[in-house]
Amino acid sequence: MLHLNAFSQCTPHSQAIGQWKNPLDKMSLGYLDLVMWTHIAKTLERGCLDALFLADIHGIYDGYAGSRNASLTHAVQVPGSDPLLMVSALAAATKNIGFACTYSTTYHAPYECARAFSSLDHFTKGRIGWNIVTSYVKNAEYNGLGTMLPHDERYDRAEEYMEVVYKLWEGSWEEDAATRNLDTEVHSDPAKVHEVNHEGEYFSVSGPHMCEPSPQRTPFLYQAGSSPRGIEFGAKHAEAIFMNFDFKNLSESKEKVRYLRERIEAHGREPKTVKIMMPFTPIVGETDKEALAKQLGFQNYFSTDGLLALFAGHTGIDLHDQDPDLELQNLDSEGMRAFAKRMNGKTVRDYLSDRPVSTMVGSPKNVADKMETLHEIGIDGFVASPIVQPGSHEDLVDLLVPELQSRGLFRKNYVTKTLREHYSGQKNVRTSEHHPSAEYRL
Amino acid sequence: MLHLNAFSQCTPHSQAIGQWKNPLDKMSLGYLDLVMWTHIAKTLERGCLDALFLADIHGIYDGYAGSRNASLTHAVQVPGSDPLLMVSALAAATKNIGFACTYSTTYHAPYECARAFSSLDHFTKGRIGWNIVTSYVKNAEYNGLGTMLPHDERYDRAEEYMEVVYKLWEGSWEEDAATRNLDTEVHSDPAKVHEVNHEGEYFSVSGPHMCEPSPQRTPFLYQAGSSPRGIEFGAKHAEAIFMNFDFKNLSESKEKVRYLRERIEAHGREPKTVKIMMPFTPIVGETDKEALAKQLGFQNYFSTDGLLALFAGHTGIDLHDQDPDLELQNLDSEGMRAFAKRMNGKTVRDYLSDRPVSTMVGSPKNVADKMETLHEIGIDGFVASPIVQPGSHEDLVDLLVPELQSRGLFRKNYVTKTLREHYSGQKNVRTSEHHPSAEYRL
Repeated sequence: MLHLNAFSQCTPHSQAIGQWKNPLDKMSLGYLDLVMWTHIAKTLERGCLDALFLADIHGIYDGYAGSRNASLTHAVQVPGSDPLLMVSALAAATKNIGFACTYSTTYHAPYECARAFSSLDHFTKGRIGWNIVTSYVKNAEYNGLGTMLPHDERYDRAEEYMEVVYKLWEGSWEEDAATRNLDTEVHSDPAKVHEVNHEGEYFSVSGPHMCEPSPQRTPFLYQAGSSPRGIEFGAKHAEAIFMNFDFKNLSESKEKVRYLRERIEAHGREPKTVKIMMPFTPIVGETDKEALAKQLGFQNYFSTDGLLALFAGHTGIDLHDQDPDLELQNLDSEGMRAFAKRMNGKTVRDYLSDRPVSTMVGSPKNVADKMETLHEIGIDGFVASPIVQPGSHEDLVDLLVPELQSRGLFRKNYVTKTLREHYSGQKNVRTSEHHPSAEYRL
Repeated sequence: MLHLNAFSQCTPHSQAIGQWKNPLDKMSLGYLDLVMWTHIAKTLERGCLDALFLADIHGIYDGYAGSRNASLTHAVQVPGSDPLLMVSALAAATKNIGFACTYSTTYHAPYECARAFSSLDHFTKGRIGWNIVTSYVKNAEYNGLGTMLPHDERYDRAEEYMEVVYKLWEGSWEEDAATRNLDTEVHSDPAKVHEVNHEGEYFSVSGPHMCEPSPQRTPFLYQAGSSPRGIEFGAKHAEAIFMNFDFKNLSESKEKVRYLRERIEAHGREPKTVKIMMPFTPIVGETDKEALAKQLGFQNYFSTDGLLALFAGHTGIDLHDQDPDLELQNLDSEGMRAFAKRMNGKTVRDYLSDRPVSTMVGSPKNVADKMETLHEIGIDGFVASPIVQPGSHEDLVDLLVPELQSRGLFRKNYVTKTLREHYSGQKNVRTSEHHPSAEYRL
């Protein structure tokens, strides 16, 4: 069975830069409106999706043409709001779908992180996921959100961060600590609530955790690092790995999957228990022709300067005034290494015209065929980026999902309750015994 | 016209320590349930209250008998969850009532604070308030949430913190910066989005703010400091001051109001524009007799050790094994000074038996008479603490509010939309021109 997430961000658009001008799209203002967001969550729940995945950044990309101007002009993930703060509204409007929230180890103390996700795991009744990011927006540093460490040290610190939050989630409150015993008049048994007494290089946290055990305890963990260090981090901690694949190059994709599974196993984990999720941008119509017409319509609204501002934000490379025939594989930066392989043989011009990225365009049958092929080489699921909201989510749910369901590739209704169970099956509410968090379990 | 808030906290009980054992109370588990919280918010909105006020702490009180045991045993604000993370669910379920959230200047970077409240001001359509606290839970320090500064230095830092968030809220985005102009294809005009370039003793924040202007911009500001320094901070920044008054000592209360108004004026503000809000615990029945019977019922469940753990948390003074006849006015600590005056002539025994605090018990007429008297000496409104939830909020809304309405003391329906307008009248959506935030307004 496949896993399906929809991607979004609390901003006019996350990837489909320029679509705010598209009359079909309502997110330019709608991103601030809980009515719009609950509509989206309910739509995705109608399609039995595992989760709504919410990206996030802190700050404004300012690396294109030496300023933030293009980011503001073209609404490149700005203005934006905090996605964590809208989840409870979506949880109250739904019963089954999960919420995967991006939250940075750089900008929040681990004690705060543990408290936030425990709170949300309670409020959602076990439907919260955490997309662990170590953050990359330089602008955030100038806003007093902590020093931007070098890439690898960011991961060293993140390793210790995970240790702290695991201790708080798994190792502080015993399962029956909140006993609420009316006979003994004990609400929480002090003998069953423990300090964590973490003393490390980056953090000093005594505990105890102030939240009682939530359904999942450790939220379901996503990670998307694609550098060698990022892959190791994901292979160790993630339960769903978010990774780009080229569906036109299946042998390379197959090798990538194999390598990932190998790294997961190297961390003492059952390779199949970690789900490999591929982001893509489906454009689905009743027929191939209708889908192509939709794609043509979207192409009118993509913004070149906006896309280059996003590119600069992701890679740190400023393509302003660059020769459009420059081959991207010749560029080098920390961020560039992350998707350099996808850029093999591509020019600046190709990058801009190949919009939206990783598109699968066609009838439900056509797109489902591609997904099935990727599933066969070991990809466990997909994260669908919308181009217009509403619209793209509805096409996903009303056109693509029924096709996947008819092939027996996707659930027809929710049989599981928590986000971890959606991925790992009934009764698997807690992290598995080989997950690093299990070491701290009481 | 009076202003009315209801008080609560995302924990089994905030002040009514021990009521988790009362079969009428459902918050022992209900504090984690959005269905319970939306019920509470809708109930209070039915009563046309200005706001639901949500207290919060980070950490566990551990100052009684040298440990955290009593806090856990008696559920003294632990276990607890993050109130900020449930507000959007309450906002989605209501249309008018405001939400006043406690948020600490000690535990979050000002850039994060600005982003959080701008997000919530958008999601609530201008119904968010911020109860500014500088924090006092020693336990938080051991959890890596920043160093606990000495009391006055905490306020120095908080002063600078306010400057930063005002700059981000009021001085970064011009009103029409997010132009969404389809003709010029400009979403946000870079020329109208400004850096704030704050460089101070405690913070260095360049900006710009990443959120577009929200309805209120600066959230409606509450403050509850009662030390001399805390009073000055409130007189300068707060739009609602939360302060204890002894309704049995009207001349002293009148003098306290006079002093507060004087301090507000000393900061160049119109004294009447700042609302003085008094916390109290109404126990209302159809008749005095019924109310007294309710009070007797509640008294079965208060917990002595729990109350002493709360006392230790607030004052830093451990009354374990103290002579019950000890007079509290003889004790001294930073926290104690805050409510030393209320303790004049009172013993430990009195403190424990005088539960709940600042109670007004009786028929709607009886309680409304007291409120009216306090209103006449200059108190603008009240913050009602519940004893049992549900129950206390319903009594407030169904018994007390109609009595206040029939006297013309309280609104019969909402004529204003934003929280600031509920307090300050229609069209006053933004802070007033004499408020310190106005200095940074573009």
